[in-house]
Amino acid sequence: MSSDRKCVSTDDRIPIGARWARIKRGVGLGLLSAAVVGVVTAIAAESAGGLKLPASFRHWYHVNTMVIDKGSPLFEAMGGMHNVYINSTGESALKKGEPYPDKTVLLVDLHEFTISDGSTLEGPRKATAIMLKDKKKYAPTGGWGFQAWAGGDPTKPLVTDPIKQCFECHQAKKDQDYVYSTYIP
Amino acid sequence: MSSDRKCVSTDDRIPIGARWARIKRGVGLGLLSAAVVGVVTAIAAESAGGLKLPASFRHWYHVNTMVIDKGSPLFEAMGGMHNVYINSTGESALKKGEPYPDKTVLLVDLHEFTISDGSTLEGPRKATAIMLKDKKKYAPTGGWGFQAWAGGDPTKPLVTDPIKQCFECHQAKKDQDYVYSTYIP
Repeated sequence: MSSDRKCVSTDDRIPIGARWARIKRGVGLGLLSAAVVGVVTAIAAESAGGLKLPASFRHWYHVNTMVIDKGSPLFEAMGGMHNVYINSTGESALKKGEPYPDKTVLLVDLHEFTISDGSTLEGPRKATAIMLKDKKKYAPTGGWGFQAWAGGDPTKPLVTDPIKQCFECHQAKKDQDYVYSTYIP
Repeated sequence: MSSDRKCVSTDDRIPIGARWARIKRGVGLGLLSAAVVGVVTAIAAESAGGLKLPASFRHWYHVNTMVIDKGSPLFEAMGGMHNVYINSTGESALKKGEPYPDKTVLLVDLHEFTISDGSTLEGPRKATAIMLKDKKKYAPTGGWGFQAWAGGDPTKPLVTDPIKQCFECHQAKKDQDYVYSTYIP
């Protein structure tokens, strides 16, 4: 289990909730200045193993959607509508609940949302985040490489310390190969 | 504009909100007895033009997601998490905001949801609904055929009167080819 209170408190209730809970420790979403982005870009490319934003993820399998609202302790770090996708490599493992093969990519397309008259409506993109499976390359982080990009802009990576910003929360889901999302038929 | 108060009141705020607002007049979601299902099956197949539930929609393009909660006047008829997909035929028209070509299918995969600690989480499927474009065949309903299935079960169609249950609300979106959803990059 993670030592992060936010992770522990939501562990059993949020499929992918804790995924970015520690991003704010590095660079909070929506708080990046242009100058910071430049520095982060250089650091992140190295620290996160040069992970790239997939170009075609909107054509991937849609795993589920989750909305994190103001009432959540995760709102500051990752509030929004989380549309979760998986590439074809990992689809079978998702459905069978098995460990994911190398080259699996799980992606969260995080959007703004508005609530009007009882309906929650999807808005513009806030960020896009991935976890890429490579058991050997990313052994220190459970076999997963982590990265996120502000606004889905490939020039604006957010993750500078994948262990603190990502893996410490994902550790809580070791029995699900460190993935919060599960298959919903 | 529709004469249905529920449609009018939410017209400018809900992308696909009014889609099934009148389903409850025919057969309310979750209220079908086994006996009713049998009768509805026979009627719906004829009245909705023999529309079939697509087998592979989870691999289609995910258009957007919307959540209708208890605070919405649409909750009784279509409360839940609406995951909207489109087949490849209609994808270009969606992105360009143009009229949809024949054989376009827009699909709503309606799921239960729970709210816990500020997070809205997707649950099991409640129903699946489609609109299929065929300008000639479905001319009385704007060129669209409508059908929905309880629990996503192809033996449990819900639409017996597509004009009253579907089209009267979709008329309000005539300028969008009767489609509530729009492209969210």
